[in-house]
Amino acid sequence: MSAGVDAERFLEDLRALSRIGGRPDGGLDRLAWSQPDLEGRRFIGRRMREAGLEVRTDEALNVFGHLPASRGPWLLLGSHADSVPRGGRLDGAYGVIAALEVVRALTESSDPLAPRVEAVAFADEEGVRFGEGLLGSEALAGEVDVERLRSASDWEGVPALEVLRAAGVDLDRVPDAGRHMAEVSSYLELHIEQGPRLEEAGQDLAVVTGIVGVARRHVIIEGEQNHAGTTPFRLRRDAGRAAARAVAGLRELVQGVDGDAVANVGVIQFDPGGINVVPGRAEFDLEVRHLEATVVDRVLDAFEARLREICAEDGCRARTAVRSSVPPARMDPKLMEALERACRATGRPFTRIPSGAGHDAQVMARHVPSAMLFVPSKRGISHAPEEDTSDEHLVLGVETLLQAVRELL
Amino acid sequence: MSAGVDAERFLEDLRALSRIGGRPDGGLDRLAWSQPDLEGRRFIGRRMREAGLEVRTDEALNVFGHLPASRGPWLLLGSHADSVPRGGRLDGAYGVIAALEVVRALTESSDPLAPRVEAVAFADEEGVRFGEGLLGSEALAGEVDVERLRSASDWEGVPALEVLRAAGVDLDRVPDAGRHMAEVSSYLELHIEQGPRLEEAGQDLAVVTGIVGVARRHVIIEGEQNHAGTTPFRLRRDAGRAAARAVAGLRELVQGVDGDAVANVGVIQFDPGGINVVPGRAEFDLEVRHLEATVVDRVLDAFEARLREICAEDGCRARTAVRSSVPPARMDPKLMEALERACRATGRPFTRIPSGAGHDAQVMARHVPSAMLFVPSKRGISHAPEEDTSDEHLVLGVETLLQAVRELL
Repeated sequence: MSAGVDAERFLEDLRALSRIGGRPDGGLDRLAWSQPDLEGRRFIGRRMREAGLEVRTDEALNVFGHLPASRGPWLLLGSHADSVPRGGRLDGAYGVIAALEVVRALTESSDPLAPRVEAVAFADEEGVRFGEGLLGSEALAGEVDVERLRSASDWEGVPALEVLRAAGVDLDRVPDAGRHMAEVSSYLELHIEQGPRLEEAGQDLAVVTGIVGVARRHVIIEGEQNHAGTTPFRLRRDAGRAAARAVAGLRELVQGVDGDAVANVGVIQFDPGGINVVPGRAEFDLEVRHLEATVVDRVLDAFEARLREICAEDGCRARTAVRSSVPPARMDPKLMEALERACRATGRPFTRIPSGAGHDAQVMARHVPSAMLFVPSKRGISHAPEEDTSDEHLVLGVETLLQAVRELL
Repeated sequence: MSAGVDAERFLEDLRALSRIGGRPDGGLDRLAWSQPDLEGRRFIGRRMREAGLEVRTDEALNVFGHLPASRGPWLLLGSHADSVPRGGRLDGAYGVIAALEVVRALTESSDPLAPRVEAVAFADEEGVRFGEGLLGSEALAGEVDVERLRSASDWEGVPALEVLRAAGVDLDRVPDAGRHMAEVSSYLELHIEQGPRLEEAGQDLAVVTGIVGVARRHVIIEGEQNHAGTTPFRLRRDAGRAAARAVAGLRELVQGVDGDAVANVGVIQFDPGGINVVPGRAEFDLEVRHLEATVVDRVLDAFEARLREICAEDGCRARTAVRSSVPPARMDPKLMEALERACRATGRPFTRIPSGAGHDAQVMARHVPSAMLFVPSKRGISHAPEEDTSDEHLVLGVETLLQAVRELL
């Protein structure tokens, strides 16, 4: 490579950013729209300027940097700069500093590709403040639901409008961020895997094939509340038992439909919740993910059928409400090929995997060719202070991203 | 029968008592130590006095009535006068007014048995204030744990000491209530079934064979918290799945040990409780009931073994803590025979069943020969405003109780 990645400089910038909102345990509290988030964005803008880039912060607080006097459309590189509460230092921040380093490496070697790339630090990907994420990339894509945000509030009941205003954001002007989308030709995002598969398979890199669709359902089972001492089993209509049976058999049911589909029940409640009361009602949240929307639908259908069967056996009734449905996002074949060629050039083992988590790339993919590159997460841990990736893998990811830009342009 | 039950008077007294703490929906809020509870006790004492009885309220607010100048030991008849919140009008109150009516019927006909019986309205059987019930009968039996009560408090954090003091009870003097136990020869309690079995079997009366033992366990399963989108099934250690499997198979497991045993899981929780987070921890409360302590133990052992099996398969660990263990109480054969003869004399269908719920008779049975008689509960509903029994069955129960007293004495 003619202009190389400066590994030390990159790692030092990543460390410096992780001190903003950093926790004593090594984790990160840089929640969207918080003071540390704003300070982090100022830090990123400052580093971009020091690299000779022209910096622009849009109406949604997305921070962009490209070579002065360069004109789009650009190949956009980046990720998000916000974190979950008690999060890790790499989720998002890694891709942001990596994008900065790639643009910087091209710029300082006066590479002719330098004017054709732009770095971005997206805002509020995690959605911990108002319940839905990807706000920064949606603003760029012109997809922000202003009316929903107008009536949303954070976990303390503070209206989104106020939280945004305190961060210097005027909700009514957020849609204006969408003007820049016409100047984006395609999008590449480098991210930690946030899962255990690369480490388990001994792979150093992964080209993401797509981002799974996520269907969320709220299930309510109604039976009959009874005294647990005086009601024999055969006369019970135990909503808790029916729910437990549905949850207990979930894994086998999902795998029976498709080996790559996953599902989860992370929340459950029995009512009225007395130790000596047969539950008259049980509720739980079901989540199903797969790269194909039709597979998600088939899993949901199979689950509904099984739920009806169980409820019929246990004298209960079930109803299921849609919580949310996010369609899968396909990554662009041409960009994936460029990433694969760059991976191959490293001589390191790499693979293709779907992303089980959501990313800004899923929003971008609806508008421009987009793709993602993963590096391994130690023990698969993410959204926790223990989130980690070796420096070697972090640097390898940046070098591969730089090479992919060269392959592509 | 020479001296008969006055059905109208009995039903009217029961209605009058149910108006004290009565709810517009027909239910009852006469919680132990509340103003309605105290007023109910005054009403019962007044009716006893009007029947020519000598009334004594002991240090635990148990109200006793017997013929003046009569001397113990007495055959004690009664039940409790307190209710659960949003409770029914019959649970406890029925047996108290029935006892009053039986003593009254014997008294007004100058029956030679009249001086040999005593009626009682026990205090705080339900245990809704300080977490453990049977306080009144335990006080009579000299079993009250004064030290536990000294550190207990109610659901609003008010110390038990203060709640009792406001009701005119001096905790330090509660053990003095035990002096009267020497004057009790045996105990008979009439109660609604609080379950659906009599109605289902078309039986009008039931002689209780015993009161089941109740073992309560708190189960904690620990796995590993993971991102539900990025962690494949085979790499999960899903504590929620393990808990659901244990709960789903509970009924079959219990019935495999003993067809008469029952068990319940009425409370469950997954942690951290995120829709997209594989539960790292699951907790639930298990309750097992049977008339034989050895069967309860065998069910618990079988459950523990199955739990260990499931956890081994799902990569989790489980631990189980004892919440409480109440031993079963055997009813006295001689008293049961007297009740059976009285049932037979009615010409109505009757049966023998164990009581799945706890009663004051289980405390009394540890000290004197004790037995219980049940009448059917409509649809098995209890601890709810819809709790009901036909007037015909209510009166039949009182007449049978009077006959049993005759059979016995």
